Amino acid sequence: MQKTRLEAFSDGVLAIIITIMVLEIKVPHGADFAALRPLLPVALSYVLSFVYVGIYWNNHHHLLGSAKQITGGVLWANLHLLFWLSLTPFATGWMGENHFAPATLAVYGGVLLGSSIAYFMLQNRLIAVNGGPDSPLAHAVGRDWKGKLSPVLYVVGIASSFVLPWLAGAAYVAVALAWLVPDRRMERTLETPHP
Amino acid sequence: MQKTRLEAFSDGVLAIIITIMVLEIKVPHGADFAALRPLLPVALSYVLSFVYVGIYWNNHHHLLGSAKQITGGVLWANLHLLFWLSLTPFATGWMGENHFAPATLAVYGGVLLGSSIAYFMLQNRLIAVNGGPDSPLAHAVGRDWKGKLSPVLYVVGIASSFVLPWLAGAAYVAVALAWLVPDRRMERTLETPHP
Amino acid sequence: MQKTRLEAFSDGVLAIIITIMVLEIKVPHGADFAALRPLLPVALSYVLSFVYVGIYWNNHHHLLGSAKQITGGVLWANLHLLFWLSLTPFATGWMGENHFAPATLAVYGGVLLGSSIAYFMLQNRLIAVNGGPDSPLAHAVGRDWKGKLSPVLYVVGIASSFVLPWLAGAAYVAVALAWLVPDRRMERTLETPHP
Amino acid sequence: MQKTRLEAFSDGVLAIIITIMVLEIKVPHGADFAALRPLLPVALSYVLSFVYVGIYWNNHHHLLGSAKQITGGVLWANLHLLFWLSLTPFATGWMGENHFAPATLAVYGGVLLGSSIAYFMLQNRLIAVNGGPDSPLAHAVGRDWKGKLSPVLYVVGIASSFVLPWLAGAAYVAVALAWLVPDRRMERTLETPHP
Repeated sequence: MQKTRLEAFSDGVLAIIITIMVLEIKVPHGADFAALRPLLPVALSYVLSFVYVGIYWNNHHHLLGSAKQITGGVLWANLHLLFWLSLTPFATGWMGENHFAPATLAVYGGVLLGSSIAYFMLQNRLIAVNGGPDSPLAHAVGRDWKGKLSPVLYVVGIASSFVLPWLAGAAYVAVALAWLVPDRRMERTLETPHP
Repeated sequence: MQKTRLEAFSDGVLAIIITIMVLEIKVPHGADFAALRPLLPVALSYVLSFVYVGIYWNNHHHLLGSAKQITGGVLWANLHLLFWLSLTPFATGWMGENHFAPATLAVYGGVLLGSSIAYFMLQNRLIAVNGGPDSPLAHAVGRDWKGKLSPVLYVVGIASSFVLPWLAGAAYVAVALAWLVPDRRMERTLETPHP
Repeated sequence: MQKTRLEAFSDGVLAIIITIMVLEIKVPHGADFAALRPLLPVALSYVLSFVYVGIYWNNHHHLLGSAKQITGGVLWANLHLLFWLSLTPFATGWMGENHFAPATLAVYGGVLLGSSIAYFMLQNRLIAVNGGPDSPLAHAVGRDWKGKLSPVLYVVGIASSFVLPWLAGAAYVAVALAWLVPDRRMERTLETPHP
Repeated sequence: MQKTRLEAFSDGVLAIIITIMVLEIKVPHGADFAALRPLLPVALSYVLSFVYVGIYWNNHHHLLGSAKQITGGVLWANLHLLFWLSLTPFATGWMGENHFAPATLAVYGGVLLGSSIAYFMLQNRLIAVNGGPDSPLAHAVGRDWKGKLSPVLYVVGIASSFVLPWLAGAAYVAVALAWLVPDRRMERTLETPHP
C-alpha cells in the first residue's frame, strides 16, 4: 500500500520532469527549416536528458519492484533523488542554449553526479530495511558495477569540462549508453522469484 | 505489477503532453474578441494535436490492456514512443504560430510519422514477448490496416507540404478522423476473453 | 481495469489543469505588497476556476465510481470533456489579466458551457452503456437539476456579459456555490449499494 | 476505492507543484559560473519549498493511509489544502527573485500558514468521519504537537518579516527541520495494526 503511493508519486514527478524539459525547446519565430538550426544543441541535450530520466525511471521501477518494506527514511531518500532529478531540466536548458559551454557541461555533470549518489543512497536504504546484504533485493542489485562506475565517469566529465569539453560530453553519453544496454541479470533475477 | 507502473507512467506523460500544449495558446493582450482572431490557427492546431494524443492514449490503453508480459525492451520501446509524442507540443505550437507554413507542416508530419513508427515498434515488441503471431494479442491487433496506412499518409503530407500545403493538412486530418471511428473489431476481441 | 486507467488519465489531466492555472499568476517585479495589488483580479479568477475544476473532479469521481462498463464511446466522451476543461487556464488568465472585461467574461462562460455540455454527454453515454434509465447509475444521477440548470445560468452569464457584466460574474459564482453544497442524495445513493 | 482516487489526484497535484517550482529557476543568459550567482536566492527558496511540499506529501500519505472512510466533506477539505499548496510556487518565486525582501517573507509565511490550517482542517474532518477522538486514526495522529506549534512559528515569522527578516527565515527553516526528523511514534502506530 505504502509502496504503491511512493511509486505513483515518483512516476508523477518523473513524468513531469521528462515532459517539461521539452518546454526549453522554445518555438522559433521563423517559419523555415533554417529557424530550427539554432535549436539543434537544445534538442540534442533534450535527447540525452530524456534518455537519462528514462534510465532512472526504469531502474527505479526495478528497484522498487523488488522491495517490500518502505520506511520514513526510504520516503525521504526517494524525495532526495527526485530533488536532484528535478534540476535536470534547468541543467539541460542551460547547457543546450549555451552550446555545451564548459561551465554548463560541468553543472550538467554535477546534476548527474548528485542524482547518481542520491540513487545509491536510496538503494542502500532499501536494502537495509528489506533484509540487508543477504536479502533477495541485495542479490537482485548485485555488485552494481554500473552504479559504481557512473559517478566516476561523471567526475571525469566535470573535471575535463574546462580542459577537454568533448571528453565531458563523451563521458555523459557513454554512461547513458552503458545503462541502455539491458541489465539481463537483474531482469532474470526479478522474474525468477526467490525461494 | 510491472504493467501497472508502465501504464501509470505513460498516462502521466500523455496527460502532461496533452495539457501543456494549451500553454502555447498565449493569453492575448487585447480584451475584445478581435484579440482572439490571431489565435485561431494556434487553436486549430491544438484541437488536431489533442485528438492525436487522445488517439494514442486510447490505442495505448487497448494495446497494453491485452498484453501480459512486459520486458526491458518493452519499457524502452514505450519510452521511445513517449519521446516522439513529447515533441508534439513543439511541432503544434510552431505550426500554429506560423499559420501552417510549409516547413512547419512538414515537421508536424515528421513528428506524427516518428510517433506512428515508434508505436508500431512497441506493438511488435509486445506481440513478440506475448506469444508471437498466434497470440491473443496478435489477433486483437489483427491486420492493423490503419496502423499501416497512417505512415503512408504522413509521408504524403510531408512530401506535399511545399507543393500543395492544403493536401498535407488534409492528410493529417484524414488520419485523425480514420482513427476516431471506433475500432469495433478490436474492442469486441478484447471484451470476449480468448479461450 | 479499463476504468482504472480512464480515471488515472483523467486525474492526471485534471491535476495538471488545476495546477498550471497558477502559472498565470506571474511573479511581479516589485517586492512590496503594492506589487501584489495588480494580481488581485488574476488571483480571484484563479480561485473561481480552482473551485470549478475541483467540482468537475468531484463529480467525475462520483460518476465513474458508480459506472461499471466502459466503451470506446465513453473514452472519447471523456476526452471531449477534458478538452473543454483544458481551455480553462486560458480563459481564466485572459479574464483575470483584463479585469473581467465583457468579451473575456463571455468566453469564460463559453468554456464553462462547453464543459457542462461535455459532462452531460459523458453522463448520458455512461448511463446508456451501464443499463439505461433504470440502472443504479441512472438512479444515482437522478433528475440532475443542478446539471440541467447550470448551462442555463452560463447562457444568462454569456448573454449579459456586454450589458450587465456583474450579472455574468454573479451567475458563474452562483453555479459554483450551488455545486459546492454537498449533493447528499447522490452520496447516500452511492454509499448504500443498490439491491 | 474512493480513497485510491483521492490519493492519486493529490499525488498528481503535489507532483506537479513540486516540479513546476523549478521552472522559476530561469535559465540564465551567461554561460559561466558567474551567471549562476544571481540564481542563488531562487535556488535556496526552491530547496526550502521542495522540503515543505515533500513534508506535506509525506504527512498526507501517512494520514490517508490510516483513514478508511472518505466523504464529500473530506474531498473538499483536501482540495482546500491543495489550493494553498498550489500557491507555493508563486510565493517561492517571488521571495527568491526579491532576495527575501520583507513583504515576500510575510507572504511566504502566509502561504505556509494557510497550508497548515488547511491540513489541520483535513485531519479533523478525517478523524470525525473515521470514528472520532477514540479511533485508531485519532490515536495515530496523537497530540500532534508539531502540527499545533507550526502555525505559531509561521505567525512569528510573518510578524517579524519587517522587523527581523532573518528571524522569519529562521522560523520557516526551523519548522521544516522539525518535520524532517522522522515521526517515529506515528510510523510505529501505523505499522502495528490496532486491535
